[in-house]
Amino acid sequence: MLSTTPRTALNRAKDRARTNRADLHAVLDAGLICHLGVLVDGSPMVIPTGYGRIGETLYVHGSTGATSLRAALASPVCVTVTHVDGIVLARSAFHHSVNYRSAMIYGLAREVEDRSERLDGLRAITEQLAPGQWDTVRPPDKKELAATAVLALSLCEASVKVRQGPPVDDEEDYDLPIWAGVLPLRVSWGTPEPDPRLTPGIPVPAHINRTP
Amino acid sequence: MLSTTPRTALNRAKDRARTNRADLHAVLDAGLICHLGVLVDGSPMVIPTGYGRIGETLYVHGSTGATSLRAALASPVCVTVTHVDGIVLARSAFHHSVNYRSAMIYGLAREVEDRSERLDGLRAITEQLAPGQWDTVRPPDKKELAATAVLALSLCEASVKVRQGPPVDDEEDYDLPIWAGVLPLRVSWGTPEPDPRLTPGIPVPAHINRTP
Repeated sequence: MLSTTPRTALNRAKDRARTNRADLHAVLDAGLICHLGVLVDGSPMVIPTGYGRIGETLYVHGSTGATSLRAALASPVCVTVTHVDGIVLARSAFHHSVNYRSAMIYGLAREVEDRSERLDGLRAITEQLAPGQWDTVRPPDKKELAATAVLALSLCEASVKVRQGPPVDDEEDYDLPIWAGVLPLRVSWGTPEPDPRLTPGIPVPAHINRTP
Repeated sequence: MLSTTPRTALNRAKDRARTNRADLHAVLDAGLICHLGVLVDGSPMVIPTGYGRIGETLYVHGSTGATSLRAALASPVCVTVTHVDGIVLARSAFHHSVNYRSAMIYGLAREVEDRSERLDGLRAITEQLAPGQWDTVRPPDKKELAATAVLALSLCEASVKVRQGPPVDDEEDYDLPIWAGVLPLRVSWGTPEPDPRLTPGIPVPAHINRTP
């Protein structure tokens, strides 16, 4: 279960809350990037970045010189992962909405120092984008590892919100002669595009070729 | 042109910067939701939410009671819109990346008080999700308007980053027998799903039926 804290409790639309850790994991595992919120000179900065999950820990990475990562270690952070599943078209402008799944994680990021955990974190981040890829490519060398900061964030304080299903209109609006429903949004993989410099004869690996 | 400020200047990967206002508008206009970063009790909070653009102003809205919107008026905000266009698969783990288009806007949000601008902002937010929809549905009534806060954010301080194209590997890695390229991500509309309570005989409007 996800414990409720003042900032993870929903004040409105409480029926959208999900409180199982499995729901949190599912939202995170289905994502490609997160939006990392940090404080820079007292102002929020929201950076899109890759991430990976191992158990109850989220990992992000970046250049050791990145403003955002230094800021992420200096003050609390918020990581949000969002999937837009459809547009909810109601009979009134007011009740328009979006079907979505989102997770928000709050906490203090920790810089990962242990070499083994650093590699595990980087593997998780790579595998989040392309499952099966880590074991097929050249692993990071010493210089690359030295240039990369790996940050860990516990999933301890987190909230999950899900909206699904048709619009909810005011009762008196249901008779209006207006179409209402959901316009689903689909995300799919295209055909892999080989690097123009690819050595001829190397086929697309099965784990990359995810076209249906 | 977008003027450069300390926080919109890119420190790394400077070739990813776009400095035309037209690029900013294009990234914003192609999006469905933004991630709004606000400060709550000294910590960042990153909220996925709808938005709309009119000229050089971005609008967001929400319940007048929402913590996030109250926070957005009490301290600086950052709004980020991100499109993931593909996964960049390199020969080395280190050079993996994502093809994306993103915009970040910094500033102080203003609560819109003028009735006409409030309606324009709400229209823009609705039209961002479903172009053509505003004029076909019941407009907000007095009670709904009173329950809705509309916030405006100038596009004055903004940055745009774009990564596209194949991976960039270390020169000595190009001969490795490893597939490299881009796995494109496609976003498309599904078939509209009518509300189970839809009055029979109302067809899907042309502006909603965007299936190819």
